[in-house]
Amino acid sequence: MKGDGFATSEIAAFASRASFSGVPAATLESLGEAGVVVVGAPFDWGTSFRPGARFGPKAIREAGYLGFDGYRPHLTTGIDSLSVLNVVDVGDLNLPPGYMDESLERISAAVNTIAAAQKVPIVLGGDHTITFANARAIAEVHGEFALIHFDAHADTGAGTLGGMPHSHGTPMRKLIEEGHVAGRRFVQIGLRGYWPEPETVAWMAEQGMRSYLMTDIVDRGLNTVVDEAVAYATDGVDKAFISVDIDVVDPGLAPGTGTPEPGGLLPREIMDTLRRLGRELNVIGADVVEVSPAYDGPGDVTALLANRLVLEILNGMAERRVREQKL
Amino acid sequence: MKGDGFATSEIAAFASRASFSGVPAATLESLGEAGVVVVGAPFDWGTSFRPGARFGPKAIREAGYLGFDGYRPHLTTGIDSLSVLNVVDVGDLNLPPGYMDESLERISAAVNTIAAAQKVPIVLGGDHTITFANARAIAEVHGEFALIHFDAHADTGAGTLGGMPHSHGTPMRKLIEEGHVAGRRFVQIGLRGYWPEPETVAWMAEQGMRSYLMTDIVDRGLNTVVDEAVAYATDGVDKAFISVDIDVVDPGLAPGTGTPEPGGLLPREIMDTLRRLGRELNVIGADVVEVSPAYDGPGDVTALLANRLVLEILNGMAERRVREQKL
Amino acid sequence: MKGDGFATSEIAAFASRASFSGVPAATLESLGEAGVVVVGAPFDWGTSFRPGARFGPKAIREAGYLGFDGYRPHLTTGIDSLSVLNVVDVGDLNLPPGYMDESLERISAAVNTIAAAQKVPIVLGGDHTITFANARAIAEVHGEFALIHFDAHADTGAGTLGGMPHSHGTPMRKLIEEGHVAGRRFVQIGLRGYWPEPETVAWMAEQGMRSYLMTDIVDRGLNTVVDEAVAYATDGVDKAFISVDIDVVDPGLAPGTGTPEPGGLLPREIMDTLRRLGRELNVIGADVVEVSPAYDGPGDVTALLANRLVLEILNGMAERRVREQKL
Amino acid sequence: MKGDGFATSEIAAFASRASFSGVPAATLESLGEAGVVVVGAPFDWGTSFRPGARFGPKAIREAGYLGFDGYRPHLTTGIDSLSVLNVVDVGDLNLPPGYMDESLERISAAVNTIAAAQKVPIVLGGDHTITFANARAIAEVHGEFALIHFDAHADTGAGTLGGMPHSHGTPMRKLIEEGHVAGRRFVQIGLRGYWPEPETVAWMAEQGMRSYLMTDIVDRGLNTVVDEAVAYATDGVDKAFISVDIDVVDPGLAPGTGTPEPGGLLPREIMDTLRRLGRELNVIGADVVEVSPAYDGPGDVTALLANRLVLEILNGMAERRVREQKL
Amino acid sequence: MKGDGFATSEIAAFASRASFSGVPAATLESLGEAGVVVVGAPFDWGTSFRPGARFGPKAIREAGYLGFDGYRPHLTTGIDSLSVLNVVDVGDLNLPPGYMDESLERISAAVNTIAAAQKVPIVLGGDHTITFANARAIAEVHGEFALIHFDAHADTGAGTLGGMPHSHGTPMRKLIEEGHVAGRRFVQIGLRGYWPEPETVAWMAEQGMRSYLMTDIVDRGLNTVVDEAVAYATDGVDKAFISVDIDVVDPGLAPGTGTPEPGGLLPREIMDTLRRLGRELNVIGADVVEVSPAYDGPGDVTALLANRLVLEILNGMAERRVREQKL
Amino acid sequence: MKGDGFATSEIAAFASRASFSGVPAATLESLGEAGVVVVGAPFDWGTSFRPGARFGPKAIREAGYLGFDGYRPHLTTGIDSLSVLNVVDVGDLNLPPGYMDESLERISAAVNTIAAAQKVPIVLGGDHTITFANARAIAEVHGEFALIHFDAHADTGAGTLGGMPHSHGTPMRKLIEEGHVAGRRFVQIGLRGYWPEPETVAWMAEQGMRSYLMTDIVDRGLNTVVDEAVAYATDGVDKAFISVDIDVVDPGLAPGTGTPEPGGLLPREIMDTLRRLGRELNVIGADVVEVSPAYDGPGDVTALLANRLVLEILNGMAERRVREQKL
Repeated sequence: MKGDGFATSEIAAFASRASFSGVPAATLESLGEAGVVVVGAPFDWGTSFRPGARFGPKAIREAGYLGFDGYRPHLTTGIDSLSVLNVVDVGDLNLPPGYMDESLERISAAVNTIAAAQKVPIVLGGDHTITFANARAIAEVHGEFALIHFDAHADTGAGTLGGMPHSHGTPMRKLIEEGHVAGRRFVQIGLRGYWPEPETVAWMAEQGMRSYLMTDIVDRGLNTVVDEAVAYATDGVDKAFISVDIDVVDPGLAPGTGTPEPGGLLPREIMDTLRRLGRELNVIGADVVEVSPAYDGPGDVTALLANRLVLEILNGMAERRVREQKL
Repeated sequence: MKGDGFATSEIAAFASRASFSGVPAATLESLGEAGVVVVGAPFDWGTSFRPGARFGPKAIREAGYLGFDGYRPHLTTGIDSLSVLNVVDVGDLNLPPGYMDESLERISAAVNTIAAAQKVPIVLGGDHTITFANARAIAEVHGEFALIHFDAHADTGAGTLGGMPHSHGTPMRKLIEEGHVAGRRFVQIGLRGYWPEPETVAWMAEQGMRSYLMTDIVDRGLNTVVDEAVAYATDGVDKAFISVDIDVVDPGLAPGTGTPEPGGLLPREIMDTLRRLGRELNVIGADVVEVSPAYDGPGDVTALLANRLVLEILNGMAERRVREQKL
Repeated sequence: MKGDGFATSEIAAFASRASFSGVPAATLESLGEAGVVVVGAPFDWGTSFRPGARFGPKAIREAGYLGFDGYRPHLTTGIDSLSVLNVVDVGDLNLPPGYMDESLERISAAVNTIAAAQKVPIVLGGDHTITFANARAIAEVHGEFALIHFDAHADTGAGTLGGMPHSHGTPMRKLIEEGHVAGRRFVQIGLRGYWPEPETVAWMAEQGMRSYLMTDIVDRGLNTVVDEAVAYATDGVDKAFISVDIDVVDPGLAPGTGTPEPGGLLPREIMDTLRRLGRELNVIGADVVEVSPAYDGPGDVTALLANRLVLEILNGMAERRVREQKL
Repeated sequence: MKGDGFATSEIAAFASRASFSGVPAATLESLGEAGVVVVGAPFDWGTSFRPGARFGPKAIREAGYLGFDGYRPHLTTGIDSLSVLNVVDVGDLNLPPGYMDESLERISAAVNTIAAAQKVPIVLGGDHTITFANARAIAEVHGEFALIHFDAHADTGAGTLGGMPHSHGTPMRKLIEEGHVAGRRFVQIGLRGYWPEPETVAWMAEQGMRSYLMTDIVDRGLNTVVDEAVAYATDGVDKAFISVDIDVVDPGLAPGTGTPEPGGLLPREIMDTLRRLGRELNVIGADVVEVSPAYDGPGDVTALLANRLVLEILNGMAERRVREQKL
Repeated sequence: MKGDGFATSEIAAFASRASFSGVPAATLESLGEAGVVVVGAPFDWGTSFRPGARFGPKAIREAGYLGFDGYRPHLTTGIDSLSVLNVVDVGDLNLPPGYMDESLERISAAVNTIAAAQKVPIVLGGDHTITFANARAIAEVHGEFALIHFDAHADTGAGTLGGMPHSHGTPMRKLIEEGHVAGRRFVQIGLRGYWPEPETVAWMAEQGMRSYLMTDIVDRGLNTVVDEAVAYATDGVDKAFISVDIDVVDPGLAPGTGTPEPGGLLPREIMDTLRRLGRELNVIGADVVEVSPAYDGPGDVTALLANRLVLEILNGMAERRVREQKL
Repeated sequence: MKGDGFATSEIAAFASRASFSGVPAATLESLGEAGVVVVGAPFDWGTSFRPGARFGPKAIREAGYLGFDGYRPHLTTGIDSLSVLNVVDVGDLNLPPGYMDESLERISAAVNTIAAAQKVPIVLGGDHTITFANARAIAEVHGEFALIHFDAHADTGAGTLGGMPHSHGTPMRKLIEEGHVAGRRFVQIGLRGYWPEPETVAWMAEQGMRSYLMTDIVDRGLNTVVDEAVAYATDGVDKAFISVDIDVVDPGLAPGTGTPEPGGLLPREIMDTLRRLGRELNVIGADVVEVSPAYDGPGDVTALLANRLVLEILNGMAERRVREQKL
């Protein structure tokens, strides 16, 4: 049965009521034969500027015009990733607004459950704080992996507004500081602007993180940069987690986000790159974050783009699967 | 089980995915013990100006912050209408855009099915064209009934743009001309502006229709006017159908509609009136129409108001039911 | 010097940069001769639905067209409340997003500082969670007082989404449960809709809280209801705190809020009522909360209304002061 | 011929392309048998806050859903004012942005031409600065007349931002200071808020101007206030000019304006009042000003309301004309 | 005389009141010496998702800041296409909402009239359903021609929502199935996403249609792809019809459309391509469709882009004409 | 002290209350050791279409999420331009709406004061009319300089709507006609569309102005075009003024502007180009103009981009300064 909604007696009015692209609904307790599990993290109390990403999972799931018997094969590959990968959706987590640690615990627990069951979690954000919880849980199950991070910002702040540890500006640092992911395994693509400050940039280099700025991409070409970044991060490890902050795209093209920074990628650039990575890497998890629908204009183009970015990752993964099956 | 979604393999991307206020999902084929059946008519190809009411059912169902285990008792009465009336939701009908007659047939068939099963249909519009289909089907089952019509417009046009019979400006006339409802049974409350033209106004009077203008309401008081209107329409009949065009409310307060006309009711006025009518009349059906979300601004206040108008009708009906049960 | 901005090295990008109506800037450490102190609480991580009230203080301060040498006398009274009351503004508090308890502590500490200095705090919200912190601090300084609460909702929930104690739906209950304000001292004006559930309504009555619904106001008249409510709450106490949730106004007229509920007051009704209360009561504090600018449309009418509601309270207070000075 | 467009080789892209309600197009050089002449003043360089009223005439003309063979009789009266009064439209004036004196000269010249031809000019603004030009020209032709002014603001400032004489805050003062209209002939209805300052209020009283605040209207009733205001202004003169600033309506209901002030009239209140004045007074001219569409939200409700306010004035005038013809 | 409006007694309120770029108004009955005829098809009852394209012709005509004596030469070529081609505008057709077959008949009749008079029709949509009517009529007059189709979607669905034949997802299939245009003559540029399903893709190939995906364009370059596409479609025929669905552009840059699909062209890419095709091909007709202004944001950038796309086609055609005249 | 606000008793409600990026506030009378002086020109009464650029300086200053202790080093260069250049902000000028000549005088006087003090003025517009005042004042101090102009339009109109001399379409012509800047020193980059007309294009060539169209940029590459343009304009002069009209960017990416023209640059293209020019040229002044926030959508991306464009110019200038200091 496709397109099931979720039993909703426990969740908030901002949570999703429908599954991603009409894939079967599931629960964390009964993941069955699924290969990939979509889960929403309606969380925005880590944002330092514009909130609203709690509506991100709902907006990403509802984006677009294909309805719930959408024709799934990607036009370029002819592969139906949702079937090939046996994707299910467990709906949105029940997260208490304003309670940081409790929320992060619940997210990590859910992602851990999925990963421990040998499925690939795809987390729909929510603000970028959740990547701390996501990658922490992945690390618990999978140990070492490369973290391929697309973003306008490094998200390596030492602390947040008011001096507390977690926010959407700190997840990558906290993952390193708490030992979940080694700095050596981080590559960041698309950075630009005026943040973080030099002390943090220096700290990042010390950790072995590698950052590719938009000016690098313009000068050297996106594919060249991605080649180099991926080679670095995956040197010696097989697994990869992909974290996509929608603000890696230029805000003129994706305005519905919390901390927009001009000068980013085009949609077609990030789309093709993500499908490529899904195909080339052993993806053990991914998140697409920072969609804030209230800032998106009447066309809802940012949520729609995020929906397609999830599909591009899945399509790359499906290409890899199909190729493997043929071998 | 509450809050079920709908199996969606047959319906459009603009259709609803969640039930009204989280009432149980049902199908037309299995209405069970339901007393009231909500059904969506995502139809806007009868509108003469701004389309978008196809998104009305979805917006009305999703409006608000109560989520899907919403506390249902009305604060004023303490009655939980959804339980008292055993309300279910069958989701949105599958209507083909641009095919007028076929669409009206499908709506009438669904409403007939509900009414014939001795349940009360509540139809979420959709533009006002659908009231032709709704009331036609009700008449097939129930025979004579009063039609209490709240609107800025009489909807008694002889024809529509381009010379075709059906549009959102013609349902009341077509119901009379085709013999489904006698003009004598129509009362209209809230009319204003510059439409229809005098020939049609004269025709309406000849049919026995009675119209109460906003200037009447301002001069005489809303309750007085409603008393008189209801007494007229229900003189000699027991049953009533209530049709609420959201544009009866002032467009400053409900901008998300297709043909707004300044100078209307306040939300609290129409809310209290509808609850009153639910309590005083034997309501055999109702519709709430002409919510066009694209014109509603970021606060979505028009869809939210329409959601509450449905609930007010239901609460009035539940008060009546509770009173009857006590007798 | 008027219209000073605030030193901002410690605060967030969503905080205010300008003082309310151009009154002198101050700091909590140097309140001087001020009689009334405006303070912003840019906090929205207690909201159960639409966030964004963190931008409320900024939007309320910047609303309108009068600039910073605004002509201050109220046209009806001819009194310049800002001068009469010696109003200053200490800017926005530095609150960490996502950290509930820490945030509430910081708010309470600031309000306590103001109240302990014998000044009247006017807190610009922020979501309604902050009233827990505000009134708790006021109680620490002033002991018993009446809490006059304008709202569509009772805000007396036992807990919030995810089972944690604080949210914008719980402050009034937590104030009673923790012993800061007696239930007997609460009156609520403007309630409507479908929340809270009957168990909570019963609990409220047991505590001695009194609630006036919009249907009461429509039936009996606003002034009559306010007369009765105030007489009840102030019976035996002299002091009063006024808490105004902007959603007491109909959402058609004030869409920029987190949990809109149709059927509320008109702006002119709440404006006149607040000025009246400022004049009649010994106001020891007030807050105006739940302005969420992202949902307000291009005209920013909700923030503007909130700005004027603050001014109406102040003007009432100034009328009282002028009258006292004449005695 | 109805619904003619205008020859446009001389005018700006922000000017109107279609006539008001589809009345015949005319030119200032050939007004023919017209009784009333609509003219647009696309001018907003006098505004002190939000510009955009240059699009007011276009928005007012294009508002609504009736198209260009709109059914014109008012539902309440059955009278077709556009025919009864022989209304024509001369389109928008060619006004140079940023050139104050030249613009005011061109407006006065056009209004003078219309009035001198014994027709009634109805000027679509444009910001309120234009009323200086409008009333100056009317005075040149008609001498003494009552000026009935609906507004949230007195518009009697001594000067404007930067120390120059004309702005939308000064027209009423300049008319008096330059001797075009005596203060004794001004009545203002709907004032509220915090402007102008006491010195100007005192000056207004000295001139014999009378102002009715919203608090007066709430306390005494709108009809009572209008009775008194009109009796005062028309004592000893027969003619009247009506100037309607759309901001007299509450901004929650009419957000699309330059300097909104909460607490105003409802649409149905101002509509009925204007029709009444059209019927009771000898209207020699009118303007409807300060519609700024960019602040109006997707429903365009403010422009639509202004369109209907023009029609209500015309309908009142037509009622008077029909009554006179019957005598 | 330039910039004439249209006699409007027969048409809808959503129809245009002004001619494209101020070219002379004409009627289908008197096309005179025109070489190119602009006609609007305000039709959106074929859309499967977001309606509103009925306002497309009006928005496209009114877009921009040049007014009606716009300086017409293209900066790159110095050629004034509107004069060179003798362009006129016959306004919007009178189409009955909700009546599919009747609407398509009226569109075909109008296009046939223009083409039969040896003029080039440029049809402003309207949703893409109209291309069935447009190309059918062109085929009646011209016989065989190449159909160069820019779109995110193939529009080759076998049927539409609810099982009826025509929608904006089916025109290209219906043209082939009914024998109006051979599949061999279709080339499609810009396709992407997840529609249509493989069976339809296979059917398309069988018909000889050729589709170029965005991934092809990224890999091979736009000019290379267009070279190949045009060579294929025009092999053996001289005439070409260009159909431009605005959604071929990335929705971040053109959000005002009914079924946006991320990952498309940039405005400058499609602009240069269309001018090129106008110059290189013997264009016998064109349409620009799927502009839905309600989803376009306050800047109206999608309608403006569509306006310029029409002009780019015309400028290319004018370059060709000028070159021919010089030979 | 950082982040100071401005004393505001003299300025309008549309003026800025906070300094650019939190640099120190200053006044024209006490510029001290500043190297670069930011000043706002809240002026839009020269615009021929959509006004609103009076809010440009405020929007540009408030754009973004970095708050007022923003981390200033540019990620690409690691240089903190605001410190290196000692940037201060004198706030917005007090300009009288609707008074063209007086406004231009005040702007020129302020810019002259800054330039005469050997500081570099960066003027935040405001519509493009202000460049006449800016460059006139620069010329008074510096004599000959290159004027590097990024824009969709040449702004060389002979006159404006209504026949008056100054508007945002005329500054470049007036600068030449009045002898302030020689035509030989103008280069324009990014032109496109249908304006100005051929006579003006010919006049421009006669003056020695050089214009690079978007089609040139697409054909030859942006860097090549900029190389050539800069070489031409700076041949024989050392100094340069940079004028950036935000509409040089494609309106899909920067919709918040007065006269958008499709087909422009990407944000990353103009960003990198401006930093390059700051580094390569001896910049003696700059302006960034035509940001009109009301047309910018809820994400405010145009104002944010303009903020970053100012920073890119400053960063380029700072790179040059650092390089010079090392020599």
